[in-house]
Amino acid sequence: MEKDFTQRLKQDRALVEEYLSGFFSGEAQHADLQEAMEYSLLAGGKRIRPVLTLEACRLFGGEMAAALPFACAVEMVHTYSLIHDDLPAMDNDDLRRGRPTNHVVYGEAAAILAGDALLTAAFEQLTKADLPADRIVEAVRCLARAAGSAGMVGGQALDMAGEGRALDREELELLQSLKTGALISASAELGCIAAGGSSEQRAKVRAYAQNLGRAFQIRDDMLDVTSSETELGKTVGSDQTNEKSTFVTALGLDGCAASVEQLTQCGIEALSGFEASDFLVWLAKALVNRTK
Amino acid sequence: MEKDFTQRLKQDRALVEEYLSGFFSGEAQHADLQEAMEYSLLAGGKRIRPVLTLEACRLFGGEMAAALPFACAVEMVHTYSLIHDDLPAMDNDDLRRGRPTNHVVYGEAAAILAGDALLTAAFEQLTKADLPADRIVEAVRCLARAAGSAGMVGGQALDMAGEGRALDREELELLQSLKTGALISASAELGCIAAGGSSEQRAKVRAYAQNLGRAFQIRDDMLDVTSSETELGKTVGSDQTNEKSTFVTALGLDGCAASVEQLTQCGIEALSGFEASDFLVWLAKALVNRTK
Repeated sequence: MEKDFTQRLKQDRALVEEYLSGFFSGEAQHADLQEAMEYSLLAGGKRIRPVLTLEACRLFGGEMAAALPFACAVEMVHTYSLIHDDLPAMDNDDLRRGRPTNHVVYGEAAAILAGDALLTAAFEQLTKADLPADRIVEAVRCLARAAGSAGMVGGQALDMAGEGRALDREELELLQSLKTGALISASAELGCIAAGGSSEQRAKVRAYAQNLGRAFQIRDDMLDVTSSETELGKTVGSDQTNEKSTFVTALGLDGCAASVEQLTQCGIEALSGFEASDFLVWLAKALVNRTK
Repeated sequence: MEKDFTQRLKQDRALVEEYLSGFFSGEAQHADLQEAMEYSLLAGGKRIRPVLTLEACRLFGGEMAAALPFACAVEMVHTYSLIHDDLPAMDNDDLRRGRPTNHVVYGEAAAILAGDALLTAAFEQLTKADLPADRIVEAVRCLARAAGSAGMVGGQALDMAGEGRALDREELELLQSLKTGALISASAELGCIAAGGSSEQRAKVRAYAQNLGRAFQIRDDMLDVTSSETELGKTVGSDQTNEKSTFVTALGLDGCAASVEQLTQCGIEALSGFEASDFLVWLAKALVNRTK
């Protein structure tokens, strides 16, 4: 069973990698820009968000192929946000996914533009899904809300403003629910939209993803403290360097572990009414136990 | 007649200003982010792009109210591009529309995020149009292509790469057709899409806008040389400071004037089959003769 799920995750990721690679078949007007986009988009991330889209679509009886452009759109938004977050004016990070960050390789101007282009391309991808127009419009609405000032970018703004002072648990939860949670929720919701799911189904899969996203972020903060740079592929201890409040500073490592456990349980329960949810249940547990 | 057109332009702009102001009715999660977005979006630009959308919609018999979200989406994309272009890592400009640029007031991080949020919001706006879903999907496709790596961002990348060396006329025309032309064309096309126009109508209004965009950009380069900072509301001579090739360096001032004249004529001719094109004809002439 475990082996089947691992295999399925591998297949989902292969679909995503293939689609994303196909995106760079030579239509950018500037080779350097394209290279900068490709450098970050094809850097071999965990692809958790697109996998959520594909699997949520499958959960509600949709065709995964139809959801693939939605899935890859989310990954493009995620990648752009990493490029911009790493910029000197933002978190000023040098290392990401085991390699120098985008601006270190291509310069700040190219990194800003590569991010801008990926964000824009994400919305174009949504229109490529072989789905009824009303589902595509709903996908645009969903992704834009999750990524914009009421979602991810709003969370990043809170994050920048919070540097250098201690945030309490509530502030931190709001910040993270926007900065990372909103896009993770949207990933799952987009799968439901692609499948033509009901609003009840969408609410359930959103609840799953929200809890998963929280657990994931807390686990991320724990790894920033307990893991090594080699394991993690990015600068460790960077939260401390930037004087950032994290769930570890707010809850302690033990409190974090307990929260992760509880949130994962809540996420799994949200899907209890659905027969085909076994993979998503497994995925939630796998993400909680990850070491990188 | 002249007075009627001026009045109509004023009315179109008022519609745009009202819609854009309404956008800031308190849903951003971070007051500073919202303020940074508002600072640039409500800075009183010429609003040429949204006016093109509204008037192209009217030309093909559509309701202007339905096209308004499309029109304002274009203005958001335009505004985000100005904020990012002005950044220190890009053109490093301090003055825009008579005021300090976004990053000068709010800092680089906030300016990057405000631009990101405006670009994202643009796509959300498209979904708010009271139009059939297939037209909205087409609008998303049109705007994303014009704004992305095959359009505006691609042009900006060419622009950054071309600094410090002389571009010939052909290179410059490609650069500008992407950097400013693509979005101006899209503005007009979005109006046609909103009106449910035919592909033939769309091609005609695109030809009009492409010629207008070229004329407009050449005029812009001329004004960068001949105008004063007070008239223009932005740093003059900045092209020279950044060692940028412009149409003035490529064609000379007289060559520029002749080109502007010719392009405007071509643009006007593209609309010759349409009875209601008098306003757009007037607008093309007015833009050519502008002094700021």
